[in-house]
Amino acid sequence: MNDRKEIEHPYLLFLGDAHDHLAAKTARGIVDWRSDWCLGQLRLDGCKTSVGIGDMTVAEAAEAGARALIVGVANRGGVIPENWVDTLLEALDQGMDLAAGLHMRLSDIPALRDKARALGRLLFDVRHPDRTFPLASGVKRLGKRLLTVGTDASVGKMYTTLVIERELRARGVEVDFRATGQTGIFIAGEGVSVDAVVADFISGATEWLTPANDPDHWDAIEGQGSLFHPSFAGVTLGLIHGAQPDAIVLCHEPSREHMRGLPDWPLPNLQECLAANLAAARLTNEAAFCAGIAINTSQYDEDEANRILNETSDSLSLPCVDPMRTGVSPIVDRLL
Amino acid sequence: MNDRKEIEHPYLLFLGDAHDHLAAKTARGIVDWRSDWCLGQLRLDGCKTSVGIGDMTVAEAAEAGARALIVGVANRGGVIPENWVDTLLEALDQGMDLAAGLHMRLSDIPALRDKARALGRLLFDVRHPDRTFPLASGVKRLGKRLLTVGTDASVGKMYTTLVIERELRARGVEVDFRATGQTGIFIAGEGVSVDAVVADFISGATEWLTPANDPDHWDAIEGQGSLFHPSFAGVTLGLIHGAQPDAIVLCHEPSREHMRGLPDWPLPNLQECLAANLAAARLTNEAAFCAGIAINTSQYDEDEANRILNETSDSLSLPCVDPMRTGVSPIVDRLL
Repeated sequence: MNDRKEIEHPYLLFLGDAHDHLAAKTARGIVDWRSDWCLGQLRLDGCKTSVGIGDMTVAEAAEAGARALIVGVANRGGVIPENWVDTLLEALDQGMDLAAGLHMRLSDIPALRDKARALGRLLFDVRHPDRTFPLASGVKRLGKRLLTVGTDASVGKMYTTLVIERELRARGVEVDFRATGQTGIFIAGEGVSVDAVVADFISGATEWLTPANDPDHWDAIEGQGSLFHPSFAGVTLGLIHGAQPDAIVLCHEPSREHMRGLPDWPLPNLQECLAANLAAARLTNEAAFCAGIAINTSQYDEDEANRILNETSDSLSLPCVDPMRTGVSPIVDRLL
Repeated sequence: MNDRKEIEHPYLLFLGDAHDHLAAKTARGIVDWRSDWCLGQLRLDGCKTSVGIGDMTVAEAAEAGARALIVGVANRGGVIPENWVDTLLEALDQGMDLAAGLHMRLSDIPALRDKARALGRLLFDVRHPDRTFPLASGVKRLGKRLLTVGTDASVGKMYTTLVIERELRARGVEVDFRATGQTGIFIAGEGVSVDAVVADFISGATEWLTPANDPDHWDAIEGQGSLFHPSFAGVTLGLIHGAQPDAIVLCHEPSREHMRGLPDWPLPNLQECLAANLAAARLTNEAAFCAGIAINTSQYDEDEANRILNETSDSLSLPCVDPMRTGVSPIVDRLL
C-alpha cells in the first residue's frame, strides 16, 4: 500500500480466465459489499464464471470513469500469467491504477512497473505491505473497537464485520470497517494484510490500522485465522493484542468437520474458544467482552438454522445470529 | 541465511566502536557459549568494552584460520556505519565470510555485496531470513523437543536452553540447540530469526527449523518473547505451535518491575503464565508438560536466591533452578 493512500474507485473488476466461482471469490466479495463502486467485470476468453454485473472492456470502463482495475481472481500459485498483462497495460494507459492481492507482485512485472512509473499510476499489491510499522506500544487508544474472531479460518469473519458496520451506520453510529485481508482491503479501499507483515510487527500494524479516534467512534475490525489453527494462530493473537478490542464477536461454521486444510484437526469447543479469545483480548483491554456469536448456517434449512442459533444462544447465554440470515441487531444492541 | 548453510567457524568477533558492555552483548554471548570458536576480538578506535579475549587484526585472524567475521555489536538504529566498511572489506579480501544481525543488511552496502560476489564469499544477514517457508502443517514429527518460554522478553531463555543442551550432551543424549534469534544463530552457526519471518509463517519456519529426527533425539529450542508481552506475543504463540514441544521450561526474572520496554505493564503471575503456555503447547502436542522453572537470580545474594528457588518450587510443585548458579540437573532428570 502506498503509505495509507486509498485505492480510488469506481472499480473495473478483472476476472481473467477464472475457472470457477471460487477463483473469483475476491471479486464477488467486492460486489456483495461495494456494488456501487463496481462499474463492470472484464472476462478473458476461457473465463467460466461471472460476478453478476455487466461485462465491460477497458475502454468502456475508462469512458465510464473507472479509477482502478482490481484483479479479483486468484489462481494456484498466485501468479500473474502473461496473458493478463496486455489488459493490465491497457488499463494503465486508460488512466487506471492497478490493485491485486496475489502472491506475485504487479510491481515485479517490469512492463507494468515501467508504464505505471512513466504515467504516474499506482500499483497496489495489497498482500505485500510496502511500509514498515512500529512495535506495538500497548498504550490504550481512545475510541471503541470491535474485532471478529473465529473457531477456524474462513468462517465468515469479514462478512460478519461488514454486516455489523452496516448496522452501526444505520443506527447513526460513527464507524469504520478496518480491513486486515486482501478482499477486505478492496472493500475498504485501504487496510493492512496483517498475515503478511514481519512477525514482530503484527500487533504494531494493527495499532497503526486502528488509531485513536473520537470516544464514541467504532472501528469494526476484520479478524484473521483462529487461535486454534496450528498453522497461523500467531497472527490471530497479535491481531487481538493490537486491536485492544472492547468487544469481540465469535464466528463459527457448524458444518465444518475439521480445521481448514487440516483433516486430522477437530474444531475447538465454542465455550473453550470464547474463553481463550477473551483471555487474549483482556491482556490489552481489561474490559473486553463478547458481544455475541455469529454462525454461518448456509448449509442448513431454516428450521435447523434456528435450532442451532437458539441452542447456541442458550448454552453460552449470549446473542447468537447468522448475519446473512437474521442480521446482527441483538449483537449491536449489546454493543451500544 | 543461505539455504541453511552454516556460518563456518572459527570466528573473528568484530566489536566496532561499541560504547558500552551492552552494545557488545552478542559478542559476549558467543564467547560465553562458543569460546573455542572465537580466535579474537577486533576493536576500532573508541571502543570502550572488551569480551575478554585477545585483540587481533584482520590479517592476524586470517593467518590463524578465521572463516568468518561476526559483527558482534549492536547500535542504535541497527545500521552499519561507514567507518566499519574498510575492516569488513578487508575480511572479505582475507578469505572470511561476514555475518551480522543488524536491521541494516550487509548486502545493502554495494561495496560489500560486490566484493563478496566477486570473491565467492557469503554474507549472512541473520536478522533477515532470505528464504521462504511453508505454512505449518501441524503434523507430529518424530524426535523430542524442548522449548523455553518466559514471563517476559529477555529473561534468560537462550542461556537456559544452552545450559540444558550442555547437560543433555554431558549425559550422552543426542541433542541440537535450535536458534531462533540473532545471537543464538551465531552460537549455533545456523537458525531462523522467527520474529523476522512473514507473520503467516512463524509456525512453518519453526517446523522447518526443528525437523523430524531420531526418536530419542532432543531439539533444545530457544524461545522468544512472552505470551504476555503485548508487543509481540504472536511470535511466541507461533513458535510454541510450530515447536510442538514435548517439554517447556518457564523462564523468569523476579527483580523485574514491569514488562520489558513497557513501564505500565506488570509481569504475569507464574502460575497463570505456565497454564497459558501449556494450553498453547497442547494444541500441537497433547502430551506437553512443564519440565521446570528457570529463574535468573543474578540480582540476589545466595541466601535470597535459594529462598526464591525453594519457594517457587514449592508453590508450583516443579523443579526450580537458576541455570547459571545451580545448573539444570533437576530439569534434565525430569526430561529423561
